[in-house]
Amino acid sequence: MKVIDGGICAPKGVRAFGIKVKGQKYGMSIIEGKGTAAGLFTNNKIIAAPCIITEEHLGGGHLNGIIANSGCANAFTGDVGLQDARSMANMLAKKIGVSSETIAIASTGVIGVPLNMAWIEGHIDEVYENLTADATGSMSAARAIMTTDLVPKEVAVELDCGIRIGGIAKGSGMIEPDMGTMFAFIYTDADISAQQLKMHLKSAVDKSFNMIVVDGDTSTNDTVLITATGMAETVDADQDKDQIKKEFQDGLDYVCRHLARAIARDGEGATRLIEVNVTGACSDDDAKLAAKAVVRSPLVKTAIFGRDPNWGRVIAAVGYSKADVDGEKLTLSFANADSELVVVDGGKVLTPDGRMLSDIMGSEEVKINVNLHKGEGSATAWGCDFSYDYVRINAEYTT
Amino acid sequence: MKVIDGGICAPKGVRAFGIKVKGQKYGMSIIEGKGTAAGLFTNNKIIAAPCIITEEHLGGGHLNGIIANSGCANAFTGDVGLQDARSMANMLAKKIGVSSETIAIASTGVIGVPLNMAWIEGHIDEVYENLTADATGSMSAARAIMTTDLVPKEVAVELDCGIRIGGIAKGSGMIEPDMGTMFAFIYTDADISAQQLKMHLKSAVDKSFNMIVVDGDTSTNDTVLITATGMAETVDADQDKDQIKKEFQDGLDYVCRHLARAIARDGEGATRLIEVNVTGACSDDDAKLAAKAVVRSPLVKTAIFGRDPNWGRVIAAVGYSKADVDGEKLTLSFANADSELVVVDGGKVLTPDGRMLSDIMGSEEVKINVNLHKGEGSATAWGCDFSYDYVRINAEYTT
Repeated sequence: MKVIDGGICAPKGVRAFGIKVKGQKYGMSIIEGKGTAAGLFTNNKIIAAPCIITEEHLGGGHLNGIIANSGCANAFTGDVGLQDARSMANMLAKKIGVSSETIAIASTGVIGVPLNMAWIEGHIDEVYENLTADATGSMSAARAIMTTDLVPKEVAVELDCGIRIGGIAKGSGMIEPDMGTMFAFIYTDADISAQQLKMHLKSAVDKSFNMIVVDGDTSTNDTVLITATGMAETVDADQDKDQIKKEFQDGLDYVCRHLARAIARDGEGATRLIEVNVTGACSDDDAKLAAKAVVRSPLVKTAIFGRDPNWGRVIAAVGYSKADVDGEKLTLSFANADSELVVVDGGKVLTPDGRMLSDIMGSEEVKINVNLHKGEGSATAWGCDFSYDYVRINAEYTT
Repeated sequence: MKVIDGGICAPKGVRAFGIKVKGQKYGMSIIEGKGTAAGLFTNNKIIAAPCIITEEHLGGGHLNGIIANSGCANAFTGDVGLQDARSMANMLAKKIGVSSETIAIASTGVIGVPLNMAWIEGHIDEVYENLTADATGSMSAARAIMTTDLVPKEVAVELDCGIRIGGIAKGSGMIEPDMGTMFAFIYTDADISAQQLKMHLKSAVDKSFNMIVVDGDTSTNDTVLITATGMAETVDADQDKDQIKKEFQDGLDYVCRHLARAIARDGEGATRLIEVNVTGACSDDDAKLAAKAVVRSPLVKTAIFGRDPNWGRVIAAVGYSKADVDGEKLTLSFANADSELVVVDGGKVLTPDGRMLSDIMGSEEVKINVNLHKGEGSATAWGCDFSYDYVRINAEYTT
C-alpha cells in the first residue's frame, strides 16, 4: 500500500467539484461516481433530513452521486426539510440523467433552520459544469463542505493489488461521532458488493471515526458514505480473494484513520492532536471506554492546552470511565515523536519531571499511553486540546 | 420549613472552624458534632484515600467529627496516602478524646501528590481551639475547603417540627458527581438511625448533587456526609412519625438542592446558572439522561456564555442523550425569572425571536424547558456556562 495524491478523484470513475464563496456561509460540493455503495449515519435520535433520505436511497445499494452543502444542517426542519433534501437529490439526478434514488445528500451547519433552496438552485450548474477527475476536483469538494474547519481533509491510497481508495471529510465541532462523523465521503475503484462494502466500512469506522472526540457532542448529521466504482485494473486477477479482502480492509482502515485524525487535529480551537493508547484492558470495549473518557475530559484537554503537567486528571478520567481499572496495576506515560516519560509504573508515582512533561505536552502530537495490566484489550482514541478559541468559536457561532 | 442562618452550626450540637491563609494552597476545616452518620462517595474506580478510610469508619454508623483540607486531594497516593488519611483522623480523635474510627476525613486539590502532613500538624491546634457554634464557625469552615470556588456555600433550614438541617459544600471543577459532589457536609439535630439517615441522604443526593455538571469529569474525592446529633427540641413529640419523616426528607432535599445549585453556579469560570427541566419523558431515568446531556453539552454551554440563540444544540443533545425522543412531539422553551420563550412546540419551529432568546440567555439564571410529550417522567439538572475563564483556570491549575 502506498499513499497517493488525488483524494476521492484518485480511484477510477470519480469526478468532483465544490464552491465556497468567501464570506458566505453556504458552500456546495458535487461528486459523481457510479457504483455499489454503503453508508453509516448518526445514532442521534434527532436525525437530519438528508441522513434520512440518503439512508432510504442506499436501500438499493447503489449510488451515482453525492450533493452536499455547508451553511445549514437541514436538521429538525420537519416535512419541509425532507422535501428540500429530496429536491436536492432530484436536481443532481436530472443533471446526471439518473434516478434520484441513486443520489446521496449531505448538509452541515446550523440546526433548526430551513435550507436556502434558492442558493442551491442558483449554484448547482456552476458546480456541475466544473466536475473534474483531476486532483483539484477532490480538493475543491473537500474545501466547499468546510464550516469551522480550518483545513480541507483528504487522503488516497493505492493497494498492492492496484485498487485505489480515496476519501474527503469535514468536521470540527459537535464531534463525538456515534457512527460516522459529520461527513466522510470515500470512493474506491474496487469491484465489490454493497453488502461486503458495508461490512468493511463498519469495521473501519469503529476504529477511526467512532474513536474521536472534539467536544463530546454527537451531531444530528454524521454521515459516512463509500462508493465502489469497480473500475480498478487489478495487477493480478488470479490473486487470492481473501488476501485482497484483507488488503482492502487495511487500506480502508488507513483512509478512515487518516481522516478521523485530521478531524480531531482540526477540532474547533485545537492547537494540538492528542492520541490516547490504552492497552492491557480486560476487553477491547473496556479499552475504548477508558481511551474515550481521557480524550473527552475537558480537564485533560485544558491541561494539555496549558502544558500543565497535571497528569492526575488522566487517572481520574480512566477511573470514571466505567472500564475495569485497578489503580495499583496501572502504568501511565506521556510521549511525543522524540521521547516518552513514564509517570506512573504499576501504580507507583515516579515523581515525574514536571518540566519535561510540560515540554511533551507542548508537542504538535501528544501521546498518552495507559496500560491497565488487566488483560489483552486495546484501543486508540484521538482528540484535541481545549483552548480559548473553542469557547470563542462556539459563543459566536450563529451570530 | 423556613430558611435560617448559621449553616452547619444551625443544628444543635455542632461546632466548626476553618482557616485558609491567603496566597497558600492549603486550607483546613474541622467540624465537631456527635451523632449517627451516613455518607456517600464517588463512583470513580480510582478512589481517594480519605474516601476509603471514611467509608470504613462509617461502618459503625457514628461520627464525632470531620477534618478536611484543601490544596491536595490525597488521591492516587498509595499506602502513604492511606496512612496520611488515618493520621489526620488520629490527630482530631486525640483532640476530642474519642476513637479515630468516629472521625471522617476529606481532602480536595491536586491528584497524585502526597499530603503535606507537616502543614496539617502545624495548623490543627489553631483550627481546633477556635471551634465555635456561632454562624461564623460554619462560614469559616465553608471558606477553608474552597479551591477554585469563588464563594463559600452554606445553607440551613428549620422544619415545622423544630428539627434543623444545615450544610456546607465546596466544588467548582471536576464536577459530574456520580454519588455526591466534591464535598458536602450536612448536619441535623434530628434523632434518627444511621440506616434511616442513609436512605434519606441517598434520596436527596440523587435529585441534587447527582444532577449537576460543571465539566463532566467525575472526581476521585466526591464525599457527602450527614451527621444527626439528635439534640433537636421537637415542637410536638406526639407528631405523626411518617409526617416527620416526610418533612425531614423535604428539608434535606432543599438543603442538598440549594448546595448543588450553588456548586453549579460557582462552576469554574461560570457567568450564569443553567437549569434544565425535562418533563413528559417515558421515565424519570430517561428525563435524567436528557437533562444531564443538555447541561453537559459544551456547545450548549458556550452558546449560553455567548448569548448565541443557537437553540438547535439543545435539540441535538436531547437527541444523543439515549433517552426515548420523538422530534415531532418535542416542545422546547427558554425562560428566565421574567419571561418564557417557546422555540419549538410539538416539533414545530416557531421562528423564535433571536434577540429575545439572546436576552434570556444573558440572564443570571437561564431555564431550558423540554417536554418530550412521551410519558410522565421528569427531572431537573443544573450546570453553568462555559467561558474563557474555564480554560484559563484549568490550563494553569498546578503551575
